[in-house]
Amino acid sequence: MKLDVYFTPLGLTAGDLAGRGVIVIDVLRATTTIVAALANGARGVVPAATSEEAVKMTANLERDGFVLAGERKYQPIPGFTLGNSPREMTPEQVGGKTVYLSTTNGTPALVAAQGADPVLVGAAVNFAATAERAAALLKERGDLVIICAGREKQIALEDAYTAGRFVRAARKGLRKVVLNDSADVALGLAQRYRNWLDAYTTSEAGRALQALGWEQDVQFCATVDRYDLVPSYSDRTIS
Amino acid sequence: MKLDVYFTPLGLTAGDLAGRGVIVIDVLRATTTIVAALANGARGVVPAATSEEAVKMTANLERDGFVLAGERKYQPIPGFTLGNSPREMTPEQVGGKTVYLSTTNGTPALVAAQGADPVLVGAAVNFAATAERAAALLKERGDLVIICAGREKQIALEDAYTAGRFVRAARKGLRKVVLNDSADVALGLAQRYRNWLDAYTTSEAGRALQALGWEQDVQFCATVDRYDLVPSYSDRTIS
Repeated sequence: MKLDVYFTPLGLTAGDLAGRGVIVIDVLRATTTIVAALANGARGVVPAATSEEAVKMTANLERDGFVLAGERKYQPIPGFTLGNSPREMTPEQVGGKTVYLSTTNGTPALVAAQGADPVLVGAAVNFAATAERAAALLKERGDLVIICAGREKQIALEDAYTAGRFVRAARKGLRKVVLNDSADVALGLAQRYRNWLDAYTTSEAGRALQALGWEQDVQFCATVDRYDLVPSYSDRTIS
Repeated sequence: MKLDVYFTPLGLTAGDLAGRGVIVIDVLRATTTIVAALANGARGVVPAATSEEAVKMTANLERDGFVLAGERKYQPIPGFTLGNSPREMTPEQVGGKTVYLSTTNGTPALVAAQGADPVLVGAAVNFAATAERAAALLKERGDLVIICAGREKQIALEDAYTAGRFVRAARKGLRKVVLNDSADVALGLAQRYRNWLDAYTTSEAGRALQALGWEQDVQFCATVDRYDLVPSYSDRTIS
């Protein structure tokens, strides 16, 4: 059995992922935001690799059917209705609509995971439900991939910690699960922090978000099992 | 004070490194091999980003002044005199010569670190001497960068563990050293393994080398403080 973690999607090719099950993680904040949007009634979330792509994708759509959301350097994108805060994904804002989302690291990671099957969207807010799917995938197929979005092409502590929690949960009770280096490193991180919030607030992204006044987002993102939903990405849409 | 680790050189620009002191790590095996070559009398080591570049660089040189060395997929490169094994860097092979070295991850990482000052070559085999320089740099400048070569654009456990040992040694006795996420992760790894050999043999590269019959290389690379030398890279040559 094989469990591979990637701390960034760099260097991953469609060939590396064909026929494999993947969990994508960008807990601060893209994957948390996606889970929150769908939990609050969004019809779907379409990740865009860039903000320009999001604008292009929606150019010919009816205005009341979609909403543009995303961030650059943690802040909302000018002209977009919503930022990348999970707390903005209220039923009033997203109910019945498709959210076109562009973020710095998270949505490119999702786009890079296309070709895998399934591509699940994981976060602390849907941890138990996603971990259950992860464990089932690993057991059935003998194989699982966890892709972290990372930050500026490097490891992001909050994602790596979360990946470690998924590694620990997925391999529980299984023998002979071979971990790649990143999975082994992630597992160590899962034991190193007191709790989710400790890891998230310690991370560079967590510190940056807090410094910019988004501390309530960090708290939200560290709220374990708020939702029971495991979004899945196929045909360009997460639902 | 600021101590940044990069688990791969990806995304690093010359601007990120200008005016900063850097330690480059690829313990299995490039930086170990470089230290061994210089300790055994090589005049210098010139890292090449590719094997083609190494061949080109030496095209007009006198035959007895240099030696071509390197690996692809852990194995010696056809036509090159030496592989990437530190145990091949004997006084007979490299004494008085310049070694032109091309490896998959290590030499590209060194090339990417050009522009920093100094660029030091670190490994377990020269740990104490390099750690002393690292601590002095951090104290004097309030800043230090450690660049790991990594493996296939992802973290390599043996490099990350070694980086963690350097982080721990460099910040000892200093207050308020701000770590980036990777430095924090590396520090955790330094506490997680029994010893150097444990970390190195656990790593994917260590396992691959052992499977291919290079277990003595892994042992060699995990031999702490075999040398007292801290090679430095400037003007395209390590000496």
